[in-house]
Amino acid sequence: MARYQVNLVYDGTLFSGFQRQAQGRTIQGEVEDALYQLGWQGASLLAAGRTDRGVHARGQVIAFDFEWSHSEVALQHALNACLPPDVAVHQVRLARDDFHPRYDALARRYCYRILLSPVRDPLWERYAWRVWPAPELNRLEQAARLLIGTHDFAAFGTPPQVGRSTNRHIYQASWWEDGDELFFEITGNAFLYRMVRRLVGVQVHIAQGKLSMQALSDYLGQPDERRVLILAPPQGLTLMEVYYSPVDKL
Amino acid sequence: MARYQVNLVYDGTLFSGFQRQAQGRTIQGEVEDALYQLGWQGASLLAAGRTDRGVHARGQVIAFDFEWSHSEVALQHALNACLPPDVAVHQVRLARDDFHPRYDALARRYCYRILLSPVRDPLWERYAWRVWPAPELNRLEQAARLLIGTHDFAAFGTPPQVGRSTNRHIYQASWWEDGDELFFEITGNAFLYRMVRRLVGVQVHIAQGKLSMQALSDYLGQPDERRVLILAPPQGLTLMEVYYSPVDKL
Repeated sequence: MARYQVNLVYDGTLFSGFQRQAQGRTIQGEVEDALYQLGWQGASLLAAGRTDRGVHARGQVIAFDFEWSHSEVALQHALNACLPPDVAVHQVRLARDDFHPRYDALARRYCYRILLSPVRDPLWERYAWRVWPAPELNRLEQAARLLIGTHDFAAFGTPPQVGRSTNRHIYQASWWEDGDELFFEITGNAFLYRMVRRLVGVQVHIAQGKLSMQALSDYLGQPDERRVLILAPPQGLTLMEVYYSPVDKL
Repeated sequence: MARYQVNLVYDGTLFSGFQRQAQGRTIQGEVEDALYQLGWQGASLLAAGRTDRGVHARGQVIAFDFEWSHSEVALQHALNACLPPDVAVHQVRLARDDFHPRYDALARRYCYRILLSPVRDPLWERYAWRVWPAPELNRLEQAARLLIGTHDFAAFGTPPQVGRSTNRHIYQASWWEDGDELFFEITGNAFLYRMVRRLVGVQVHIAQGKLSMQALSDYLGQPDERRVLILAPPQGLTLMEVYYSPVDKL
């Protein structure tokens, strides 16, 4: 028996989120079903984070214990043959016996994509939030700079377990423009439930003039007094990478 | 009654092609149904070309006669409100009474997208053909240069009506690379049925060393003797633009 560390890529559109549920198609469910087809007898795989319904991933990390007598590459091919078209395994490696993709993660990086258009766009909207009027880029950049550092993000989401800390450290947060697209990238030690989507929603409202920059400072400075109600839609969000110490690097 | 010229954007994934059929969901069917909801009483709209099952469009052009008492922008909004998420109207203008999107078209431009990866990629494969091993870019460029000019493309497809000419003029054909993506762009006066997908298939096989450059010359020089059997899949192909004389320009 050995522990495997696996990098997953998925299109979240047709899933009810990552976490296995009694009802509904989930990424965890599809991957566990693929493992069962290969003879796995585990109860549940471990994951770096639970992406929400409709959120995509390019670098989700999972782990499981498995008695597999072939190579890691053979396991990758076998899993990809069993998985549906909207989930794929991009890397497999042997991990430490006690490696945990969530507790050992040092940081996560997310990317949020916005399409600037007054009209619906069938070729973009599966992977972007369409926004109009266009938010001002320099206001977005100014807002993102306020996020960097350690803050109590209680106004932006709930912790995975009730009563846990809502302090998070943001290493990097930036916006850039490419034609009629806007991209937001954020790297933090960890994120609260729906925190990235609320951060995007608030910044977009500020950069459209619907909310003041001071409101963001207040959300960060007096988190107990108010909750963010603006939630950017899931299809713009992709979990890009989970970071580990060099010894656990995928 | 006036003739309207309309630019359509669509994701072809869930359609049985452009042309209305007795069975199956089609782009023509969805647009005509939207027009009927607005009180249209026509029998059939006109289109620049019939894209195949699974092929996308950013610049399909259609036309229809309609008694509409509001502005072109109001018609665009009304149509977009009636159309499903995978079809959208991006422009509406009043056209000449005898404007025909197909017969008046001077040229069409298509783009074909390839993803270079040995592994399935759920976040790209809706809009790209995954190819591995990677074709050599300089061989692709060399092949594309052979296509430019007037040739008998009979080996690459059939004309819209039996017995019509299979000569076509290619104005421009080029490949470029962007990270792990390859793009092929081609502009011609018109294209035979499935011609672009066969041109892509043959060029990729040449650049992977499975077919000689001479084979392409033979397909072009002796079109009656052989037929191309290699067909690149539809999801990489997008109809980008249809060109008209300045008077009909959308």
